[in-house]
Amino acid sequence: MNGPDAPLDALSGGVTGPAALGPLLATVLDALETGATRRGGPLPTGHPADLAARVTEALATAAGPDALARLTELLAHGAADPADPYCAAHLHCPPLAVAAAADLAVSALNPSQDSWDQAPAATALETALLAELAALVGYDPAHAAGVLTSGGTESNLMGLMLARDQKLDGIVELDGLLGLPAGVRPRIFASRAAHFSVQRAAALLGLGERAVVPVDVDRDLRMDPVALERALAGASWAGHTPVAVVATAGTTDTGAVDPLPAVADLAARYDAWLHVDAAYGGGALLSDRLAPLLGGIERADSVSLDFHKLGWQPAAAGVFLVRRAETYVSLARRAVYLNPADDERAGYPSLLGLSLRTTRRPDAFKLAVTLRTLGRAGLGRLVDACHDLARAAADTVRAAPDLELYAEPVLTALLFRYRPADADAPQAPADPAALDPAALDRVNAELRRELLRTGRAVIGRTELPGEGPGRVRLKLTLLNPHTTPEEVAGLLGEVVRAGREAWRWVGR
Amino acid sequence: MNGPDAPLDALSGGVTGPAALGPLLATVLDALETGATRRGGPLPTGHPADLAARVTEALATAAGPDALARLTELLAHGAADPADPYCAAHLHCPPLAVAAAADLAVSALNPSQDSWDQAPAATALETALLAELAALVGYDPAHAAGVLTSGGTESNLMGLMLARDQKLDGIVELDGLLGLPAGVRPRIFASRAAHFSVQRAAALLGLGERAVVPVDVDRDLRMDPVALERALAGASWAGHTPVAVVATAGTTDTGAVDPLPAVADLAARYDAWLHVDAAYGGGALLSDRLAPLLGGIERADSVSLDFHKLGWQPAAAGVFLVRRAETYVSLARRAVYLNPADDERAGYPSLLGLSLRTTRRPDAFKLAVTLRTLGRAGLGRLVDACHDLARAAADTVRAAPDLELYAEPVLTALLFRYRPADADAPQAPADPAALDPAALDRVNAELRRELLRTGRAVIGRTELPGEGPGRVRLKLTLLNPHTTPEEVAGLLGEVVRAGREAWRWVGR
Repeated sequence: MNGPDAPLDALSGGVTGPAALGPLLATVLDALETGATRRGGPLPTGHPADLAARVTEALATAAGPDALARLTELLAHGAADPADPYCAAHLHCPPLAVAAAADLAVSALNPSQDSWDQAPAATALETALLAELAALVGYDPAHAAGVLTSGGTESNLMGLMLARDQKLDGIVELDGLLGLPAGVRPRIFASRAAHFSVQRAAALLGLGERAVVPVDVDRDLRMDPVALERALAGASWAGHTPVAVVATAGTTDTGAVDPLPAVADLAARYDAWLHVDAAYGGGALLSDRLAPLLGGIERADSVSLDFHKLGWQPAAAGVFLVRRAETYVSLARRAVYLNPADDERAGYPSLLGLSLRTTRRPDAFKLAVTLRTLGRAGLGRLVDACHDLARAAADTVRAAPDLELYAEPVLTALLFRYRPADADAPQAPADPAALDPAALDRVNAELRRELLRTGRAVIGRTELPGEGPGRVRLKLTLLNPHTTPEEVAGLLGEVVRAGREAWRWVGR
Repeated sequence: MNGPDAPLDALSGGVTGPAALGPLLATVLDALETGATRRGGPLPTGHPADLAARVTEALATAAGPDALARLTELLAHGAADPADPYCAAHLHCPPLAVAAAADLAVSALNPSQDSWDQAPAATALETALLAELAALVGYDPAHAAGVLTSGGTESNLMGLMLARDQKLDGIVELDGLLGLPAGVRPRIFASRAAHFSVQRAAALLGLGERAVVPVDVDRDLRMDPVALERALAGASWAGHTPVAVVATAGTTDTGAVDPLPAVADLAARYDAWLHVDAAYGGGALLSDRLAPLLGGIERADSVSLDFHKLGWQPAAAGVFLVRRAETYVSLARRAVYLNPADDERAGYPSLLGLSLRTTRRPDAFKLAVTLRTLGRAGLGRLVDACHDLARAAADTVRAAPDLELYAEPVLTALLFRYRPADADAPQAPADPAALDPAALDRVNAELRRELLRTGRAVIGRTELPGEGPGRVRLKLTLLNPHTTPEEVAGLLGEVVRAGREAWRWVGR
């Protein structure tokens, strides 16, 4: 792949692009390796301001042909690298090398999915892949439709937009909400543990965040169908319009899956659109062991899936699907310069009306390559490995006197916290039950920052519905299938050590 | 970069990722070169259905370690490659090799901009780059803010969302549009040549497409400020609320730039938000010669820029900027698992509240590397080269008896059409003025499809406001700085040849 250096303004496409890319890619790989070696752990040590100063300095002085190496090394050195076993905070997966390599082909050719004549093969490939993903969800591919998205937030927005346009009287996309008869009050029902993008979508769509009715959850953060029924009935009595019910298949914090069949029954009874946010849990469809958790998803009107979560793709690899293609109607648009009617009649297909975007990178390509390289079974084994890892982590937490498990992991995430109880820890109070909850919160928040500052580990934190604001829970989201249970135990050991240090500073 | 093959499920990150990536990247480069060679032109020959069948066949049979090579070769073979001089239809640029290489580093590390602990260096880098881009627009970087986006469509949506939330009474993001007092009629003013994403945004935001008041344009597709004043005054008399004025700096079809100072004066007078859609024309800011065209852009409340158009980045490299950071308020959100308040107080910055997305790939990285590698001056030379090319193309069109130029190019695009007038063309009518306009449209639409089907060229088509539907104009968008005037002349020669063929079939 090496060769004489191409000019700085060489292009990546055409017959000569690969030769120009070769030496640049060698530079990138060297810089990635050097940066990761210098980092020497899951993230760089120090305060964010230190790193920001290094970035400012590099941007001020990097110039010419050396800029690529210098900035790439800094990006790698300054990464929170999900490929490191001690980086396990978020739904932020370590990509497969084959997916990253496939994504390079996309960058080099730069197809854009907004018209066939910018992406001939990529148009056909996305269409075929979506049929396959529709079948994975249990939809009839002959009637389903969908599109690749930037992620669950965009997919949730699309589901709620189509719901709004289907369920409200009048032509909202033309006349707007203000064209509706007076007194219409649209409502969206989602559990208290649903992703915050549901509220965001409601605001963006002009419905307002308060249009989202929060439905109570059980302790595992699963939506309570009795509470949903009560909420739907209450709205109905008040004359409100139930636009959509959002069920979550895999909450961000616990991986909880709402009871989909019961929720689907209720949505149908109240004529609400059912959107299933499976941005996290959708990965379970790849695993024979875990797929039954998502039974009922095939009844959804629309679904969000994210293969940059439990699917090992570089961002973005979001997927939005609808069960019936005709429900897409309010998004269909004709742009005379992109999809003129006579070109469509002549057989030139257009994906323009399927997306909120115009220019659109074919993120389907890396996902198709990954599915063909590993197969569903191969990807399912990776899902199972992460599930096994989460269960092993839960065992370790349960066995650690200074750690408190919140609940058994459902998918690959677990919640816990540091709670000094060990007789050997001199800073623990004589009676652990006497611990001040606010002190415990300060300690858990501080130990997480201490792990970040010292470059030892990246773990997550959250607060749970029903526990009130400020009640800090720690979180591991295990998405690296090559991590061992021993490495997770080592990471949890660091949590305990950092907890003891933090207790000394902020615990009292 | 070669080495022993890594397992199929090897990761791209960490210290060992680069070694796993090496052989896969070599495979991709080989397949890109083979695919481009087999294509042998700007796009594959044949009907879209033929290519779709090849894609279906490849997806049905590719499996295991060979899938990457096979599908990449198909993607390249089936590409409309903007690096080919005969591919010049859309605002679909050929990426710089250095930008594609930088994008690989992002794929490999997979940072996500929704929290610092998923992207420590990338967070600092995007912040610094945005300050630089704010200065490029003429904003005071100390007061501006912004974010990388998926493109002009998302940026226009963001501008109009902030405008809606600022200019309407009440708290729209919480209570929705239906919480407004009765009789409020929000209006958005945009020229008839503005991008269709303005209407799309109005629909998504719940304002409805009919909230967009179309403002007349002159023959070059520049907004007529007298017409804008009339429209604003009319809305004001009717008691409507002028939410936003959208000015276009570089229309998709002609590159026309609306008269920004006059539009800014009117927006200020009517207290409307001014959004400048410079998705195409923003590239002119890189050129000393063309930057003066955008004088006045610094008065905008918000701006869209797309460096995957006149900036040679692989998609996506959109930018959204606001002049005053505080106008971002309605998008600010706190998610307890991403940006808890005590972490922010401890110095951990968060970009979450700047974007409509949650997971977000750091598209800023490739742009920063490109700016440092070539400098603004180096990129400006590429802009000027494309501008020169468009002017040369206009000269060629003007000199061709069978081609009719619509107008002088402003940036790098030009509109024209085939119009037989050559005495040597036996199919031309004796009196060219007697040509049936509908026949001319059919011929121009058909010649474009004929160029696609025979794999000879990818040119654009459009219809212009004021000409009525179905009046086909052809378009070249010249974004390849390495294309020569002779190659463009060759491409235009193909247009004439295809026009003569098409005339025989559909002209009469």
